[in-house]
Amino acid sequence: MERVYLDNNATTMVDPQVSALMKEYETEKYGNPNSLHSYGMEVRQPMEKALDQLYKGLGASDEDNIIINGCATEGNNTVLKYYLFDQILKKGDKKSVIVSSVEHPSVFNTAKYLEKMGARVIFLPVNVDGIVTLDILKEYLNPEETALVSVMWANNETGLIFPVKEMAGYCRSVGVPFHTDAVQAIGKIPVDLQESPVDYLTFSAHKFHGPKGIGGLYVRKGMPIGPLLHGGEQMGNLRAGTVNVPGFIGMGLAMDLAVSQLDRELTQVRALRDRLEDAMARLPDVSILGKRELRTPNTILASFKGVEGEALAWELNKFGVAVSTGSACASESLETDHTLVAMNIDPSLSHTALRFSLSRFTRDEEISYVIEVLGKAVERLRKISIDY
Amino acid sequence: MERVYLDNNATTMVDPQVSALMKEYETEKYGNPNSLHSYGMEVRQPMEKALDQLYKGLGASDEDNIIINGCATEGNNTVLKYYLFDQILKKGDKKSVIVSSVEHPSVFNTAKYLEKMGARVIFLPVNVDGIVTLDILKEYLNPEETALVSVMWANNETGLIFPVKEMAGYCRSVGVPFHTDAVQAIGKIPVDLQESPVDYLTFSAHKFHGPKGIGGLYVRKGMPIGPLLHGGEQMGNLRAGTVNVPGFIGMGLAMDLAVSQLDRELTQVRALRDRLEDAMARLPDVSILGKRELRTPNTILASFKGVEGEALAWELNKFGVAVSTGSACASESLETDHTLVAMNIDPSLSHTALRFSLSRFTRDEEISYVIEVLGKAVERLRKISIDY
Repeated sequence: MERVYLDNNATTMVDPQVSALMKEYETEKYGNPNSLHSYGMEVRQPMEKALDQLYKGLGASDEDNIIINGCATEGNNTVLKYYLFDQILKKGDKKSVIVSSVEHPSVFNTAKYLEKMGARVIFLPVNVDGIVTLDILKEYLNPEETALVSVMWANNETGLIFPVKEMAGYCRSVGVPFHTDAVQAIGKIPVDLQESPVDYLTFSAHKFHGPKGIGGLYVRKGMPIGPLLHGGEQMGNLRAGTVNVPGFIGMGLAMDLAVSQLDRELTQVRALRDRLEDAMARLPDVSILGKRELRTPNTILASFKGVEGEALAWELNKFGVAVSTGSACASESLETDHTLVAMNIDPSLSHTALRFSLSRFTRDEEISYVIEVLGKAVERLRKISIDY
Repeated sequence: MERVYLDNNATTMVDPQVSALMKEYETEKYGNPNSLHSYGMEVRQPMEKALDQLYKGLGASDEDNIIINGCATEGNNTVLKYYLFDQILKKGDKKSVIVSSVEHPSVFNTAKYLEKMGARVIFLPVNVDGIVTLDILKEYLNPEETALVSVMWANNETGLIFPVKEMAGYCRSVGVPFHTDAVQAIGKIPVDLQESPVDYLTFSAHKFHGPKGIGGLYVRKGMPIGPLLHGGEQMGNLRAGTVNVPGFIGMGLAMDLAVSQLDRELTQVRALRDRLEDAMARLPDVSILGKRELRTPNTILASFKGVEGEALAWELNKFGVAVSTGSACASESLETDHTLVAMNIDPSLSHTALRFSLSRFTRDEEISYVIEVLGKAVERLRKISIDY
């Protein structure tokens, strides 16, 4: 076994079909879609096809808007700062924003910025299962004061799925806009905007086997939004900058593939994940964080008593197995992970936590190999551990 | 002749070497550079190499900063909004920003936004040659009031080059930060930050045969800057979001190629441009906008009396020749072009203006072909013109 990549919540391999498709738009059909000549015109139909693939994949209506941008961080910043500058600071009647306490840094730290700029930010606690429930949201939401609610669809570290449909429905019933960062949900569980009345939804291609550097922001018909990037008239004046044509077209195909192979994710990937998780659970002193049935089918966050998560990640890396401790977006930092703190996880558990995230490219023999080396690695590290 | 692409100021073909290099980082070395395992580690050295290529290409010092982002629009927004929110609105002693009246929409419209948000914005007029001179800048700049000056290095529509070195030097001498949008200069004329004391410089890979969806912001040592995108800790907390690794690595190589082939641009591309321009000038009633010696070596903006620019672009497109009217970033709009208005160009000239922009991939026989069909196209359209 050369290498096994089990860090798909950090980023994914670009599907070879997607990569091949993009190449054509780099060296042959490289026009600027705003141009009126043949080089500009010939990319419009493929871009429309990609947009259709995104609409279809998300269950968006024709009248809804999807703004193509550079990444999920940009999408999350666009929504939260629109509410800060154009609603809260300008109108001033509703000054508070509600986010969960386990959001990805692109929402969490942007919410901190909103706070610094004068908004009141409420960080919703999670229940014993690590989830924000509808009841928790109801407790903190005040329709007279809350300008926006933002709760992720699935958590990047634990894989825990949040009751977005119920929360969005409740927010709609009381007239409060609802945003969700769906980066970790797309391609892993059904995401259907016909069924779930969310108003804003963020996504990023590189989390579902599309390219890095491209993402999108869904905006439901009638919901207000403004640009984060001012400049040219692209995206109906809602996102300036030359569209990343190969990325956009690649993201469309990646969405199509992710959604059409969702059944595989829900069955085969889940079965591989469960097999790995069951094997882990058979090792002594291992805790799995978050109930299995509440998680995306590809994710395990496990604590190995007495073994630092980072040390185990290094040990597994020697065997060619790529896993990570918590969020890649903060993994260079040694600060305590805000998600695990919010979940009230005992510090000894959070320091020993390691995330395994599979994809539709994960193979059966890879899981067998990981099970084999994981047991050895944990045993070796525990032998030299002062805590075990 | 199948097709000839002369719209390189709108966007460029990705150099096939660049495209080939990127592919490896999509389907093989696809790790998130923040990850600590082998997939994350193996992209760091190529990213460092790319960063070195950018530093070297721009003549940046090791102590300066280059923030990798999504596009020049993002870079321009980052600088201008940093000065709006963190300097002007917060400190309040210097409330004005100076930009030229011929900036690309990503500066021009962002400056309009600053104005709306409470900054005082001065749009510098241009002289008879279409250029902002040092004298004009001195006339409007007041070190007690001016928080930032932003003047482009070369204009996207006319190719006119601005005296950035002199303006930046003057700004430094009076203690006012200087930003330049160098998107149209890189790869076309020497851009050396050792020589030109600019404080902030914006660039975009897709204008120098790199990929779309990736750009950078240079920040001189000691100059303040803050993030436009909040979130993860990438780029030293100055630009959140997973780095577009293939784009970044591709941009590095594209910069290296652009700079190493600059001599070719200054001689061969210039010679081809001059040949095309001379042939145009021999047609009756043609005006070339901007003195040749003041322009980037690849650009011609020409007015063909009695022929709408858009009609001529369409006619040329039938012959497979891709050119454009003004800025691609606004070419879907029918509004009068703010650059030509600022240049005091007679409306009859601006409506008949067409931009021809070459690249190092433009071949001699392509120019011969364009000269041939241009004459025919102008003649045909003038026969049916009511203005000629």
